[in-house]
Order: sequence, then C-alpha cells, then structure tokens
Amino acid sequence: MNIVLLSGGSGKRLWPLSNDIRSKQFIKMFKKEDGQYESMVQRVYRQIKAVDPEAKVTIATSKSQVSAIHNQLGEEVGVCVEPCRRDTFPAIALASAYLHDVKGIGEDEAVVVCPVDPYVSIEYFQALASLGHLAEKGGANLSLLGMEPTYPSEKYGYIIPENKEEVSPVKTFREKPDAETAKSYIAEGALWNGGVFAYQLKYLLNKAHQLIDFTDYEDLYKKYETVNKISFDYAVAEKEKSIQVMRFSGDWKDLGTWNTLTEAMVEPVIGQAMLNETCENLHVINELNVPVLCMGLKNVIVSASAEGILVSDKEQSSYIKPFVDQINQQIMFAEKSWGSFQVLDVEEESLTIKVTLNPGHQMNYHSHEHRDEVWSVISGTGRAVVDGKVQKIGPGMVVTMKAGCKHTVIADSELKIIEVQTGKDISVHDKIKFPLEGEGI
Amino acid sequence: MNIVLLSGGSGKRLWPLSNDIRSKQFIKMFKKEDGQYESMVQRVYRQIKAVDPEAKVTIATSKSQVSAIHNQLGEEVGVCVEPCRRDTFPAIALASAYLHDVKGIGEDEAVVVCPVDPYVSIEYFQALASLGHLAEKGGANLSLLGMEPTYPSEKYGYIIPENKEEVSPVKTFREKPDAETAKSYIAEGALWNGGVFAYQLKYLLNKAHQLIDFTDYEDLYKKYETVNKISFDYAVAEKEKSIQVMRFSGDWKDLGTWNTLTEAMVEPVIGQAMLNETCENLHVINELNVPVLCMGLKNVIVSASAEGILVSDKEQSSYIKPFVDQINQQIMFAEKSWGSFQVLDVEEESLTIKVTLNPGHQMNYHSHEHRDEVWSVISGTGRAVVDGKVQKIGPGMVVTMKAGCKHTVIADSELKIIEVQTGKDISVHDKIKFPLEGEGI
Repeated sequence: MNIVLLSGGSGKRLWPLSNDIRSKQFIKMFKKEDGQYESMVQRVYRQIKAVDPEAKVTIATSKSQVSAIHNQLGEEVGVCVEPCRRDTFPAIALASAYLHDVKGIGEDEAVVVCPVDPYVSIEYFQALASLGHLAEKGGANLSLLGMEPTYPSEKYGYIIPENKEEVSPVKTFREKPDAETAKSYIAEGALWNGGVFAYQLKYLLNKAHQLIDFTDYEDLYKKYETVNKISFDYAVAEKEKSIQVMRFSGDWKDLGTWNTLTEAMVEPVIGQAMLNETCENLHVINELNVPVLCMGLKNVIVSASAEGILVSDKEQSSYIKPFVDQINQQIMFAEKSWGSFQVLDVEEESLTIKVTLNPGHQMNYHSHEHRDEVWSVISGTGRAVVDGKVQKIGPGMVVTMKAGCKHTVIADSELKIIEVQTGKDISVHDKIKFPLEGEGI
Repeated sequence: MNIVLLSGGSGKRLWPLSNDIRSKQFIKMFKKEDGQYESMVQRVYRQIKAVDPEAKVTIATSKSQVSAIHNQLGEEVGVCVEPCRRDTFPAIALASAYLHDVKGIGEDEAVVVCPVDPYVSIEYFQALASLGHLAEKGGANLSLLGMEPTYPSEKYGYIIPENKEEVSPVKTFREKPDAETAKSYIAEGALWNGGVFAYQLKYLLNKAHQLIDFTDYEDLYKKYETVNKISFDYAVAEKEKSIQVMRFSGDWKDLGTWNTLTEAMVEPVIGQAMLNETCENLHVINELNVPVLCMGLKNVIVSASAEGILVSDKEQSSYIKPFVDQINQQIMFAEKSWGSFQVLDVEEESLTIKVTLNPGHQMNYHSHEHRDEVWSVISGTGRAVVDGKVQKIGPGMVVTMKAGCKHTVIADSELKIIEVQTGKDISVHDKIKFPLEGEGI
C-alpha cells in the first residue's frame, strides 16, 4: 500500500501543547499497552505498519515539521515537504509527483490519501488497504471512504451515495450542514466525508498537469509558491464523474479540538496532578515537572506546558484560536531531528536553554555574531568541536564559545547540556552555518 | 509605639504562592498607588510607619522567615527569632524578653501585639496606637481590640464586653461558634477576637516568669525547645480579671485563604493572563513568564508559580491544606536576605538554578563535598572568590568549582548567575561554611 498522510496546520487549537513549530500530531498523549505514551503520528504509523508491514508511508507536510517527524518515526518514513502552504490539491499533486519521480512508484499503482490525525482502531487501516485495492482495480477514477454517521454532525461535509451497497457510485456532495439538514442527509443514506480517498497514480498526475503548468516533481517544488490555493474536493472530487464511495462503519474520530481530544484519553490525567473528590469530567495534561492541584472543577480541561497554561470550560475550548493568535510568546520547547531544546530562562541580555542530543546526532557546525555561549554538560558523553579543535566532553565539563567562534557538539550517548547565551540582540536568526572541520572527529 | 507582629505558619493554604520557606505574608500581590506590588508584611509595615514614623516594629517569627523579612523590609526592622514553634504564649514571652533585654524597652512602656496578616486601612493602625495609650494608662492589665462583627462568622472567637462603651471591661470569651450561636452572641453585643492586644511590658514579663522558669531573653532562647506549647488566650487572656476591650468598627479582614485573599485584590489578574468574555468572578495570579489562558470559568482561582499550579473553585479552595501536605516538591523559588534563587531544571545528577544577588550582598563562603558547580554570569558585576583567589566577574564570564573547593561571590551591582550543579547525591545539606579569605576582597 502507498499511503500519503496529510500533516498540516500549526495546531493552535491545542495550545499550549501545540504551537507554530510543534503541531498536535506530535504530542505524546496516547497511552500504549506498555504504559508508554505515543503521539498521533506515531500511533497512526504503528497502526499502518501493523496492517501492512510493507506499506510505503509518505507524509506531506511543511518544512517546520520535518525534524519532529524524523525524531518520532525515524529516518525511513518518506517526507514530501511543501515549500509553503497551498491547500490540499497542490499538496496532493506535489506528493503524487514525489511518489512517481522520487520514489519510482508506477503509474498504475494505487495511492491512498488520508489526514494524519484520525483517532481510530486497526480496522480503519484495513479499510484503507481495501480502498487501495478498489482503486487499483480501476472501477472508478476516484474511490472515497465514507464514514457511517453516528449523529447529525455539523462539523463534516457529507457524501450522498447512489445506493446502500458497500461500494456505490457517488450521487453528490454536500457542504457542512446545520443539525436539521444533517438529519435529512442521514435519512437519505449520506456518509461523512473524512477526506480519505484513493486513486491510481496516473489519474492524479494527469489532473495535476491539467491544472498546473509543471514538468516534474522538482519543477513543481520550485514553482510551488506561484500555484493557486485550491482544495482537492473543489478542484477534483466534486467535478469527477467516475467516482465511488466505500462505506466504513468502524470507530472514527478526528482530534482537532481539546473537546474531542480529551474524549480519546484513556485516563483523566497525564503528568503530575491531584484532583479532589468534587471534580467531575476534568482532564489534566501537565508537561511541567511541578504539580497541578485541581479542586471543585467540572467539565474543565487544564493543560500546562513550557509555552503556557490553558484552563478552559470544555465547550468554550473550541473558541481558543483567536486568543492563541494574540500570544506572541517565545518558543519554549521544540523537538528537532537531533533531539530537543527547552528554554529555561529569559533575561534581556541572556537566554538559558537545555539541549538534549540523541545518541549519534549532532548540531550543525555554526557560529553567532552577537552572543557568547557556555555549555555545561549535565549528562552523557560526546565530542565538542570549537574552531576545528575536538575535545571529549562529559558531566561537569564546560565549553566556552565567544561570539564568532565556530562550534558544534556530537553526542556519543544521549547528551544533555545547559547552554547559557549572553549578549545583546539574542535571536535565532543570528546563526551562520559551516561545513564541519576538525582533526579526528 | 512598640509593636510586635506575629508572623507564623508555613502558609500552605495559599499554595503554590506560599510553601514551607515562603509564607503568604511575603507574596507581592497588593497593588500600590504607584502601580508596584507589595506584600502583606510590606503593606502592614508601611501603614504602621505612616501612622507613627517612630514606631518600633519587632517581628516575632521562625528562622526560616528572617531572610525574607530583611529582604523585604530592610535591616532596620527588629526580628525576634523563635528557635522552634511553641504557640503564641511562649512567642509573646520571648518577644517581650527581647524588647526588654535586647532593645532596652522600659518596663512601664506599652507593647501592642497583632498578627502580621490583616488586610486593613490606616485607621486600624490608628486604633492600635490608641490601644497602646490605653495600656500605658494602666486602667487594666490587658487591653484587647474587639472588631465589630459584620456577619455571624464561624471563623473567629468572640469577646463579650460588659457594656457598649468604646472601652468596656471584658465579661467573658467565647470559642468559635456555629452561625446560629454567633447570631446570639452578636445580639448580646459580642465582638470578634482578632488576636490584637496591648499590655505594659512588666505585666507580660511577670506572667512569663510565673509560667516559665527562665532568667532573661538569652536563657529563654536557649531553653525555648523545652517550653510547653500553650496559646496566649488560654494561658493569659481567659484567666485575667483586669481586662478591657476597645471597640474597632473599621474594615478588618484576615487573609488566610484564597477566598479572602482574592476578595482583597484590586484587579482580577496579576501577571500574564488572558480571560475570555465568558469568565465570571475569576482571579488569576501568575508568577510564571508564560501566559495563562482562561475560558468559560466561573468562581475560580488560578494561581501559578515555580512550585506548581492551583486551579480551584473558590469555595473548594479552603480545603487545600491536606492536598498541599502531600506534595513533596523540591523548593523551586526562595527569597533570601542576599537575594533570591530559582530552580530552572532538575535531572537525576544535576540541578540548574538562577541566583540573583542584591547589590553589596554575598553568599556564605562555602564548599560542597559531592558536587561540581559552574557559574555563568548573565548580568551585573561582582567578585568571585575561589579557594582564596579573587576575580572580577561580569556578563558572559564563567567560574568553575570542583567538589571540595571553597567559593563565594560578592555582588557589586545586582548580579545574576546561572549555576549548574553536577554530581551524585545533590542536596542542600551538602554545604560546609568557612570564614571568608582572599587577598584584596
């Protein structure tokens, strides 16, 4: 199975766990059978591999998510990077060109596209595999998955099938309705449109060439910024005559808001928290290393991270976005392909961070114009390179770097460092990269 | 006026702003006219000095509060340190002996005793001055202040006066009643007992010598641990025949719980917070440097500090103590006479803290057996002394100290340092103090 996972959005609606560089799909909040926690993207990837160990998974996403994807899924997963956001049709066109031109997928092979954030059981991915087979058979140009509605939702678009068979031609699509209209759609036999579909690669490539002027993947990547924003539904699905829908009646939930996310939590608390006996329908997710004490709260979500604290009535939490847009907060925590960093202290002319490097990984070799830095190693071992000189480092050791000096660190085991930056105009943009140099690295 | 402020308790009921070493009386949460915030103790001290600039203020407290008192009030304020907690009678006896033997206060002078945490206006302190004059006149051995009740409170003991004059002999005392009984007391003309009273110094010293076997202040201080716990009311007030009460009808509130504390807040928010329009009767006190977003909360208090986060229904917040007793959290922030420290990061074999030294102050000269330390100066200037060697320090400079080496730092201007500790068994108890040595300090 070739599967493209659409991983979009900055996930502001799950602030403070998500932010501009840390999207909801990377928050580790789902408890596995072994007691460890995994993120949405880890859960979905694990489920796909359980259904089809040979599945070729490609994640279509923005540049800002690439580090987090490799950090959580390893290096093997395919990543198709959108140079900028251009809605779903250009993203799917780019991913299709990537599969054909970079990954060498044949034109007759089927591709299944689905969002990265469904909260579902294994049978959903079995349905995706069936959808792929259906597309490969070629009975229609486009094969959709339609979810059997469990209530007259106003959140989803609806697909009206021609008949009640497991696979039926699509009669028409309906926009997100109000609850009354949704009831009438359901009476008609309508299905939820979850944005899941499959096609033979050649079909989508032809569509892409019809609508966008490009030669191959590389060309499309280069001119991506000039491509018009347009959704896949509008550009393709709603105009396609040869289109069918396969019913899916299993559990299906998308986890876009705190309200739906907390419904998917197995336990009411993740992290350090104490709840008194008068709390009801309360969920706490606390990423800080200090306790949260909750007393007398009903229908409330409390979420605390290095970025901030949300305390919200569950229904009100769906109106979070405009408030989070106002927050102009320094990024306090980020996962990178090499590890992670956390801001510990911010002063006018200094910044203190904790850097964690995964074993075998390293930072870029770089220098800063406007700041000095001091590394104090707190655990692990590795090698620091400063202006080409290599030294072994371990707990308690200190490396000082004046402004202008080139430096990096290579982790031999998991390496944790406290980095103290001092200087005027401390900024993430003050960074010059160099090729690594140094004897005996 | 000689005034003794009783500053007791660990203030767990205002967690996370207060803890074992940071009591509620030191939290800066009251907005002054200049827009700055002051603490309970700063507010009370300022009010006393406004009424009587010559007032001699002595704070009776435990050792753990001495640093914070001097940090907030300066060095001039008198501090009578209780070697351990022995309830109010021994504390008042010790303070009285301190005033007589250390401060040289005459035996005929009046002493006014009151708790450190009333939230009151200037007229309360004017009443204290009148109470002092009354005691000095000698019309009774003991002169109490009785607050005119505003509602049948179950929180206070009651004083029943013999008549309705401004000053009346006391008929009897009543324990904290239920609301119904409180109503009948009030119908009888009862007053709240706020623990405020005045006496001539010789009266209390005689009582002290009757009940405790000691010679002078120093002797009492030494044997303080062997003294029985007993309250002033039980040991003295309830047995005294020559006792009068002065009415006080002005505003009077003690700030012992979140509920009463938030009632005293001028604005609903201290610190970074956003409230949506559906919040009602919500108070937020946020000491962190990241925002708190509140949506749809009613009658709730949110308080966040380096120690933890409280989210509580206001009524429920009065049941906080047993939960806070369970928290076995490392102290994350403390004010000291020389400045303050804040824990930034805790790992198994390392601890990172930010130390702020006030200008002209210094740490003890000390060493550690089990840990290495690294100082990175982030702002200010001063002098570091390491094994007797003095060096000037400023922003970006680094000082490394191996286990066993003696060290201190002296602040010439306000000095901020990131201290990284590494080693096994990091503990506040691993500290050996030395007399300062070093050429040209």
